[in-house]
Order: sequence, then structure tokens, then C-alpha cells
Amino acid sequence: MRQSQLFTKTRREDPKDELAHNAKLLIRAGFVNKELAGVYSWLPLGLRTVNKLIAIIREEMNALGGVELSLSALQNRDLWQKSGRWDDQVFDAWFKTTLFSGGETGLAPTHEEALTSLMKDHLNSYKDLPIYAYQFQTKFRNELRAKSGLLRGREFLMKDLYSFNDSQAGLDDFYDQVKGAYERIYERVGLGDSTYITFAAGGSFSKYSHEYQTLSEAGEDTIFVSQDKRLAVNKEVLTEETLSELGLKREDLKESRSIEVGNIFKLGTKFSDALGLFFTDQNGQKQPVLMGSYGIGVSRLVGVVAEVLADERGLVWPKSVAPFPAHLIWVPGQGEASAEAADRLYQELTKAGHETLYDDRPLPAGEKFADADLLGLPYRVVVSDKTLAVGKLELKNRSTGETLMVSQAELTSLCFGE
Amino acid sequence: MRQSQLFTKTRREDPKDELAHNAKLLIRAGFVNKELAGVYSWLPLGLRTVNKLIAIIREEMNALGGVELSLSALQNRDLWQKSGRWDDQVFDAWFKTTLFSGGETGLAPTHEEALTSLMKDHLNSYKDLPIYAYQFQTKFRNELRAKSGLLRGREFLMKDLYSFNDSQAGLDDFYDQVKGAYERIYERVGLGDSTYITFAAGGSFSKYSHEYQTLSEAGEDTIFVSQDKRLAVNKEVLTEETLSELGLKREDLKESRSIEVGNIFKLGTKFSDALGLFFTDQNGQKQPVLMGSYGIGVSRLVGVVAEVLADERGLVWPKSVAPFPAHLIWVPGQGEASAEAADRLYQELTKAGHETLYDDRPLPAGEKFADADLLGLPYRVVVSDKTLAVGKLELKNRSTGETLMVSQAELTSLCFGE
Repeated sequence: MRQSQLFTKTRREDPKDELAHNAKLLIRAGFVNKELAGVYSWLPLGLRTVNKLIAIIREEMNALGGVELSLSALQNRDLWQKSGRWDDQVFDAWFKTTLFSGGETGLAPTHEEALTSLMKDHLNSYKDLPIYAYQFQTKFRNELRAKSGLLRGREFLMKDLYSFNDSQAGLDDFYDQVKGAYERIYERVGLGDSTYITFAAGGSFSKYSHEYQTLSEAGEDTIFVSQDKRLAVNKEVLTEETLSELGLKREDLKESRSIEVGNIFKLGTKFSDALGLFFTDQNGQKQPVLMGSYGIGVSRLVGVVAEVLADERGLVWPKSVAPFPAHLIWVPGQGEASAEAADRLYQELTKAGHETLYDDRPLPAGEKFADADLLGLPYRVVVSDKTLAVGKLELKNRSTGETLMVSQAELTSLCFGE
Repeated sequence: MRQSQLFTKTRREDPKDELAHNAKLLIRAGFVNKELAGVYSWLPLGLRTVNKLIAIIREEMNALGGVELSLSALQNRDLWQKSGRWDDQVFDAWFKTTLFSGGETGLAPTHEEALTSLMKDHLNSYKDLPIYAYQFQTKFRNELRAKSGLLRGREFLMKDLYSFNDSQAGLDDFYDQVKGAYERIYERVGLGDSTYITFAAGGSFSKYSHEYQTLSEAGEDTIFVSQDKRLAVNKEVLTEETLSELGLKREDLKESRSIEVGNIFKLGTKFSDALGLFFTDQNGQKQPVLMGSYGIGVSRLVGVVAEVLADERGLVWPKSVAPFPAHLIWVPGQGEASAEAADRLYQELTKAGHETLYDDRPLPAGEKFADADLLGLPYRVVVSDKTLAVGKLELKNRSTGETLMVSQAELTSLCFGE
């Protein structure tokens, strides 16, 4: 994409009404627009990153046998009354609204009720199980405070996967498979090293749930990390009993601030009992379906990558989720030579299917380099009179700062290879 | 996809609480689930159709120079107060809700206000123009009656494109380009013959807007069609003046019921004036930006294709938007031969990247064929003892009913060729 056609402009100054580092950077770089506290629109670069993230997660969900669907935002109150979660005392972050035709509806903060209920039309027998269904869907939560940018939104994008099994063994097995998928996802988006599976409070059907927590001072959670075992314990369940069960010693754990980037939970029969989701087993007996739910905050994850990987000059995207892997910069010089060379390179890359952001704007080099640093694409490629003179391209790695003079073939391999 | 893994089940009976033909069929075929009147969730097959439709529209929007973004659902009340459309007397289909932190917000029924406002941060000079920005985003409208299934949703998916130009000539030219793109879209989704560009009421900046109307008895609109000129006039502007301006005679026009499947509108400076979106022209003068808006109801279009193309046996999808181009049906017979042959064919098609729905369920042929007719995929491919005996595959065209015995190479070319 030519930057002259990308309408977003960068800002040198932090937005006045924003406290969170991730949102400041994403707004300055033109990835998002703030509509209200905790409500952001995706501008073209931000949307590209969201879509890259979705593609990675979708691949992992499909590999688990997940089937994709998309549930509505407006919710049927009756279902939430059956589960007991319509009450504002029970669930305190509802956006509720009135139907002009009579009655109330609410904006989905999560989708257990809706999905459990619709499964009743599609699931009768043990032969229909297991079912794994997931979606990428907007959730709404009426947060009293929303000062953490994309880390805590009032409107945010989530991947939520739900499992339906006919046995505890089936649920347990799938739950373990999801752990593997989640590890791969955090690894693939560049947060593998800083993200820990974390024991957290469970419910009536399981002693613990598991969170995935990324270390960050911007986080709202406190966890206790075992580096050796690559796991952590949420402060809320840090008891002698937990430590002994997990074979941990308090003195080996390091207290850290962290951001929850995922949560997996064995629901058991909580929702199937409440909403009447039963199957007939091999003996002809009716049984409630065993369920699990598995979430990843997609928009939050964009915020976390921004927050955790950025440096003092701006955003730093891993190649996997960068809006473009490479930022081609034309540096205006004497005559037309550099412009022609940059144009030609852009066209060749585009023709080869290599998506590139091309800064074709007639601006001073310093301004373009500052923009490139702020946008944070993995590789900066410079075409200037100087690079033309030596018959090479200048390639700079945004993350390491390393600069190389390379041939076009080397460029292609480094920026667009696997 | 193996049908044994697709969790949705078909229904023989119409749902009791649904009046609209499109929704009855889509529910029976397991494409959607009804959550509330006018609120539907997308089940896996329906979501696949939505995504095919999105891909077609996205291609046409990108060809126009459109840049994709995604605006929030929760709206900033201040902006709508500036445009005068927050008032329920002015816009009568708001879903409004309260922020626990204080104040009100509403669910976006459209996005002119939000986009016009955010452009103020990105647009200063005539050099920044034109800008064409579009999105696929959920809209919410608090309809008093929502009895038309997917044709009139309280929550629905729209493609909305907005143009920003520095001159009337630029706006006019882009507006004409959009007409071409819209014609291609309706043609590509199988509604080309039954869809007419229709003159409708304009606003303060243009005498007419244009709707795209698809002929259907299920429609809520009344239009007057000129077959010769391939255009129509909405009843609301059918005056002597209109007829004379368009060179039409009343007696040549045929009155028809129709469904609005798109709307394009020159907004002029209505929103840029109200929200203060100005640019500096070549003479250094501040001018309001000229805008246009261009909508297509994506979920409605799924409903229209379902409603208009279906027959008495079920849905009939054009190849372009079918969840899968082909429905491979294994007919259980003597021994394992047919199952093995069907499995092998499915694996070969999948390996070649040909996405196929594979009915691998051990059910009687009649039940499978009835399901296939209801789902309405373009080609039904049968593997049975009978087809094995003649060394061919049975291929049936869902739309024409034509049945052929074909080789695997012919099957691939017919079902998956261009």
C-alpha cells in the first residue's frame, strides 16, 4: 500500500485524554481512534494487525477441530435469567437497553448462554459429541473505569471457544489440547517468553481455571512466577494448599505484575444444567453435557503486544502480526532516479504478492524515518541516491536496530521468507 | 468439511415463531439461529456464505481505491448531538444505554458521525483528498416490527463506504464508479437480472439518491420498473417531474414489490459542516469536505439471495456465495466399497484445495438427498454402488436439476473451475 493513499497521519504528541501507554502509541501511529474511554475504532493499519492475529488464532482453533460461527451481540434476556446472570448484582457490567417492541435486551459480555441454548436444537445423542465451536466476536462490558487503553475495553474483540463433551475424560483431554494451542498462539505473536500459564480460581466443577498472563508493569493482576516450571500462580489462589498441590515453594516464586491474555475454564454442567442441554448416552440415559470455555482477548492482545514490545521510538511489531512485514522508504534526492527505483521495487514486490507499506510521500528523510520507527514495521527498506550508488538496499531491523546493505533477493528472503 | 463434524442439524418443520420465508429456510437448513425477532446468529454454513459475500464486496471496494477500517459500535453522543441525530424524534430507531461511569451511549445505526469526526485528525489539505474508507460492521436499529427475517434486522451486518472529495466533479465521478462496482456485486451474487438501480429521494445536496432494488414479493418497497432502460423509480418520487427528467413514460413502467439491497447517496457538506471537517484548498481557503455514503446490507443480501432464488425443496445458492461449491454424498450400499471411494474422493478434493461439504453420515440416501436439496449447494456429487459400477460420478445441478454422469476430472472442472 502506498502511504500517500493511507489516509492516517501520525502524531508527535501524546493524545491529551489517554493514560495508557499502549493506546497513546496506537493512536499516535494511527492504528486506532478513541471514540470513548475503553472504546476504540480500528484504522487501516490496526485492522490489518487484528486480521493477522485472527488468522493465527483461527488456524490453531481449526487444528483443534473447532468449527467457526458468529453469535449475535443483542441477547435474549430469558436465557440469562435461567442461568442467573441477568441480575446486575450477579454480573455487574451489563449494557442493557430497551426494545421499542417491549422488553429488554443486553449486549453480550460473553456467550455461554446463547451457545448452550442454541445447541439444544442440534445435539441429542452421544453420537453428536464432541462439538467444539468458536467465534471472533465483539463483547461489551460496562466498565466503571476504562483507563488501560486496549487492555480493558468497554467494547472489545474476543475469540471464544466452547467445548461440549460427553465425558470428563473427553473434556480433560480437549482442555489439555487447548493449552498446547494457546502456547503456540502466544509464541507466534511474539509473547511466548513473557507469557505464563497461571493457576487461578476455578468454580464448582474444577478447583482451578488457567489464565495466560503476560508480564508487564501495566498489568492489573499480580502473579507469582516459577521460572523453572514456566508457570505462575495468581495471587487470588496463593495459599499453602495450592503451593503444596503444585509442588512449589513460596521462596522460589517471583511476584510480578501481569496482563491476562487468555483464560481457559472447565464449566462442567453449570450451563447445561441451567439451560437444559442434555444428551442421551450409550445406555439411553439423559445426561447434562460437559462444557468448557476458552477465551483470548484479541483486541487486548494487540494492546499487549504494543505495550510490551514497544521502545522509546514507537511500536515494535513481530512479523507475524505486523500490518506489513516491510516498510519501503523512498528518500527524495537529486533528480528522479531514487523515486523511479523505489517505485519499481514497490511494483515488483507487489506483483510477487509481498505486501509492503511504501512511503512514497515527498517528505524529508528524517520525518519519514521517525514515522517508520513509530509505526514499527519489522523491516525498514531504504531507497536513496546513496543506496543506488552502491547498487544495494538498506535494510534495518526495527527490533534489533541492525542495519544491512542487501540485494533485492536478500531483501525478499529476509522480509518475506518464512 | 465432513458433515459428521458439522454440528448443525436440519429441520423438516418450519420454526413456529418465524413469518419470513428467508428466515424459515435459513433456520431449517441450519445457516442461522434466531436469538430474538430481527436478531440472528450465524451458524457455520451461514458464516461461510457471509464471508464469501464479504470477499466479493471487499474486492470491489479495493478496486475503487477504498481503504478498510472498522469503527466501534458504541457511539459518542456528543457527535450525534452536533449532527442533530441523537434525538429520538429525528432518528427513531436508537438503542441507547447508560455508561456506569456517567452519561449515555448508543449503538451505531450508521457511521457518518464517527467517521467524519475522526477524519478531522487525518485530513488537512486538498493534497490529502480524495479519501475512500469502508468497513464491514454490525449496525443496530431498534425496529418496532422485525418480521422479515434477515431482510430487516435489529442487528445486521453492513458494508458502508464513505467518500471524501475536494470538488463536486470528484464526488460525481466517484459516485459513478460506485454504480459500476454495485452492478458487478449484484451480478456476482446471482441477483443481476432481478436488481434495478432505482431513483429515490435525495436530500439538500442532491435531488435523487439511488437505491438498488431486487424484485420480490417479500419486499417492503414499491418501485416502477423500466425494463428497456434497466432502471426503476421508487414510488416516493414517482411524479410527472421525475418522469420527464428521466425521459420515462408512466405507461412503460411496471409496478413491482422489491427489496432494497443497496443505497448510494451524495451527502454533500451536510456532515462536514455539522462536525467541522474542512480542508485547505489550493488557494489556501478553508472549505468543507464533500462527502458521499454507499451502503450494502450484507446480512440482508444473504436473506435476499435465500428468498429470491430458493425453490420448494430449499435453498439455491449461486456458486459465488455458496458455503461450499459442492456437496459430496456417500450413499451407503453393499460392503465398504462406496464409503472407501467417497472418502478417497473427499481427500483428493481437499488436498487439491477444493472445499467440499462431505456427507459421510450413515443415513439413508433419501434423507441425505432431502438435506442436500434444503442446504442448496450448487453441485451434488453422488458416490454409490451404482456410480462405482459404471466408473463415473453422478453430478446434479441444484439450480437446473440437470444430472450428468461425469469423470473426476470433469467434476473438478465443473464444480471448482472459474
